[in-house]
Amino acid sequence: MKFRVKDMDIATGGTLVAILNKADARKLDLHSADRILVHNGKSEITCILDISESNKAVPPGKIGLFEEVLQHLGVKNNALVEIKPTGKPESVTHIRDKLFGKHLTYEELYHIVGDITHDRLTDIEKTYFVSGCFTNKLNNEEIVDLTRAMVHTGKKIKFKGITLDKHSIGGVPGNRTTMLIVPIIAAAGFTMPKTSSRAITSPAGTADTMECLAKVELPEKRIREIVRKTGACIVHGGSMNLAPADDKIIEVEHPLSIDAEGQLLASVMAKKYSVSASHVLIDIPMGKSTKANNWKAAKRLRKKFELIGRKLSMNVKVIITDGSHPIGRGVGPLLEAEDVMAILRSDPLAPADLRKKALKMAGYLLEMTGKYRWGQGLKEATRLLESGKALVKMNEIIRAQGRQQRPKLGQFRHAVRSGKIGRVREIDNEVIAKIARMAGAPTDKGSGLYLNLRLHDPVKRGDLLYTVYAESQFNLDLAKEILRQNNGYEIH
Amino acid sequence: MKFRVKDMDIATGGTLVAILNKADARKLDLHSADRILVHNGKSEITCILDISESNKAVPPGKIGLFEEVLQHLGVKNNALVEIKPTGKPESVTHIRDKLFGKHLTYEELYHIVGDITHDRLTDIEKTYFVSGCFTNKLNNEEIVDLTRAMVHTGKKIKFKGITLDKHSIGGVPGNRTTMLIVPIIAAAGFTMPKTSSRAITSPAGTADTMECLAKVELPEKRIREIVRKTGACIVHGGSMNLAPADDKIIEVEHPLSIDAEGQLLASVMAKKYSVSASHVLIDIPMGKSTKANNWKAAKRLRKKFELIGRKLSMNVKVIITDGSHPIGRGVGPLLEAEDVMAILRSDPLAPADLRKKALKMAGYLLEMTGKYRWGQGLKEATRLLESGKALVKMNEIIRAQGRQQRPKLGQFRHAVRSGKIGRVREIDNEVIAKIARMAGAPTDKGSGLYLNLRLHDPVKRGDLLYTVYAESQFNLDLAKEILRQNNGYEIH
Repeated sequence: MKFRVKDMDIATGGTLVAILNKADARKLDLHSADRILVHNGKSEITCILDISESNKAVPPGKIGLFEEVLQHLGVKNNALVEIKPTGKPESVTHIRDKLFGKHLTYEELYHIVGDITHDRLTDIEKTYFVSGCFTNKLNNEEIVDLTRAMVHTGKKIKFKGITLDKHSIGGVPGNRTTMLIVPIIAAAGFTMPKTSSRAITSPAGTADTMECLAKVELPEKRIREIVRKTGACIVHGGSMNLAPADDKIIEVEHPLSIDAEGQLLASVMAKKYSVSASHVLIDIPMGKSTKANNWKAAKRLRKKFELIGRKLSMNVKVIITDGSHPIGRGVGPLLEAEDVMAILRSDPLAPADLRKKALKMAGYLLEMTGKYRWGQGLKEATRLLESGKALVKMNEIIRAQGRQQRPKLGQFRHAVRSGKIGRVREIDNEVIAKIARMAGAPTDKGSGLYLNLRLHDPVKRGDLLYTVYAESQFNLDLAKEILRQNNGYEIH
Repeated sequence: MKFRVKDMDIATGGTLVAILNKADARKLDLHSADRILVHNGKSEITCILDISESNKAVPPGKIGLFEEVLQHLGVKNNALVEIKPTGKPESVTHIRDKLFGKHLTYEELYHIVGDITHDRLTDIEKTYFVSGCFTNKLNNEEIVDLTRAMVHTGKKIKFKGITLDKHSIGGVPGNRTTMLIVPIIAAAGFTMPKTSSRAITSPAGTADTMECLAKVELPEKRIREIVRKTGACIVHGGSMNLAPADDKIIEVEHPLSIDAEGQLLASVMAKKYSVSASHVLIDIPMGKSTKANNWKAAKRLRKKFELIGRKLSMNVKVIITDGSHPIGRGVGPLLEAEDVMAILRSDPLAPADLRKKALKMAGYLLEMTGKYRWGQGLKEATRLLESGKALVKMNEIIRAQGRQQRPKLGQFRHAVRSGKIGRVREIDNEVIAKIARMAGAPTDKGSGLYLNLRLHDPVKRGDLLYTVYAESQFNLDLAKEILRQNNGYEIH
């Protein structure tokens, strides 16, 4: 059946959508979310169908196409195209099976992940997948298979030498250990091609923070060169097409803040497996706002990580750390980058807690390689930091990636002072993160918080707790609105 | 923050959508599916946010609005509106709880169903709800509460006299008992305000079939008058706003053909409860293509229906019937309507199986009222049918609803003949339904199948099994494509 194209002037950035009028859809026995093959003699593409209830948006006889579809077919407004109903992709059957509690095989997971990667599934179908994996759980076999499927539907890269990697589970503002560990490890002569993410719900991701110092969006070829030259990199993983299904799965988890454990494990491990890491250190911060909010959950997660690692032939070590309060003093991309650089410069005012945690983790990684005896890793990491070798390496990495003009600290500032006397008993990660985000982080790089008083510090009335930095009055006001309810500090 | 309106020229027919450019969304810390309040000083409305990745569809500084939103706000292209982020509706928290296995209270289900009714939830959120109810199950208490919530977010109507209702679970082509039972019951002096659905995946719903004889889309006021005058009606429930959330839930079940038992029970019972039915007969056809495909499942479902009925103070009787093959001879709106009228006219060629089943069911309903002794119901029903009183009542109902010009039988025909000798051992409901749909049913009222040979009939080579009727060559060809693989008859 032939239809005349209507350019809908909409890009989804993903899913391939075609819209038919209600009457035409009924005639062809087609429903919303059915698949149709649209072709014009020269090329063809399978689209997901949407139904127009009104005759205004898409009248009978017309087919509304989104930008991605128009581009792929190479057609314009008013062109004639033909359509043919096609079945649902096989992966939908597998998703249905998962909802019924079936265990999925590698091939089945590969189908699903492949279709997610290529935008062949609707939001509803992806949601059923996440939901089925969440309520019916993935067993260890399935998590390993999901990890492999995610990697094999993207790119897998191999670097020279012993390749190390690390990952910190999120939820703790300021926990910027990566930017310290990478130069220390590279200074010790190992390979650490670190791909990091941008913030989704936090005030800064490692990619956002590193971007204050160097370019992080680089083509894969450049990244290979940088790693060959310096032994390391700290770049945004997005442009590298590593486990691309992962982000698309996270998109449907976000609306309900669903944290399907199986998907979390597969998501983390897939990124490590994609860069062929042989030794991986996982940091599980434990605190009320983090994914593991008690010892039992943290230990369970540790066991899972170790098991999945073994099955993927990676040497995985997991540490459980204190995630109850922010780490370092800065919260927000620039302020966190400055904490990192202060530690690398051995500045006496640099935050001791972040320094200590990063050294400990770097030490573990060094020991995992087998080149350092137990207890010698931390010593070597400390030596590399204190001797300035890590700073030299960091500058080498920055130069290789392309130095960035350092952003300016937000000019709109607000001092938050204590109304009480006592000690800081608690600093709420979620409130601190929310204030920093309202102030503009991570989009506005110079926005965020600088913590003056830390956990256990004594407090007098009127003492400065922290300063809020924003790049606009608008964002400072948004932050102040949160502050009116809660400043995140528990003092008594 | 102020934005200039871009009229997207799209109507969703439901969800209220507003689109911001990616850069603006990041600045305001807004994500896809977040809620924003859009206002222009005079009116305001909460929309679900979509993000435009491209600057073409929605450039920075603009807000793309769908038709429903434009109409509600009373604004046009280029108007200035202000937006304010608002939280997610409370119901999202309850949906999350259900995914974690919590039992939901009436108030929580009422929130969810209310938000579904008013299009305040996204497809992703609705899918999580259906999925949570499917995998974590609804207990009896929750099913009753969901039923009540569905009724109370719509309209509840009370009629005079003893109000009877019936429902047949789908999956059996030709099972058009309603159009026989209603006139018999009304002829006996009881009230039977039957609201029926249109076909979703079957070749004909009762509403589609009745529409061959009379108008079925009537305003509530007219329906009340018709029932007062004739004691009954057979109308499409859609226009009456009875349990309106039901259809919106079915929409997200469809893509994966999920049949959540709890939702099925609530869906059926809500329609009965909405018209304040006191006596309800439920028909559970059992067969490989129906919802209950074995005795255990059928009996389980029967028990559930009876229990839910008791809790809602309705007298519910459930019968389990043979659902293994089509009933009657016609499949498709007009052909089924003709079967019904032939039975009412006591035509000797009318299908005996449909007649027998309808009489049995009408008899049960009469006995349930307590006005007929056990065994007397069937006798009275038969008397009302054979005396022509049911036909008189049917014509009265048709006149009251407004007689329709009878559609014409499809002019494009194809005879399907047997290639074998033997007996008809099986007629596959799903294949028969698929062929009828491809032929154009239910949209084309005169399309469908007329079964010449029935189950257990002896067959000679070349005997006519059935005729396919279509209103266009295009649809006849679609039906023939299915026929090439399977004609639905098992003969040996």
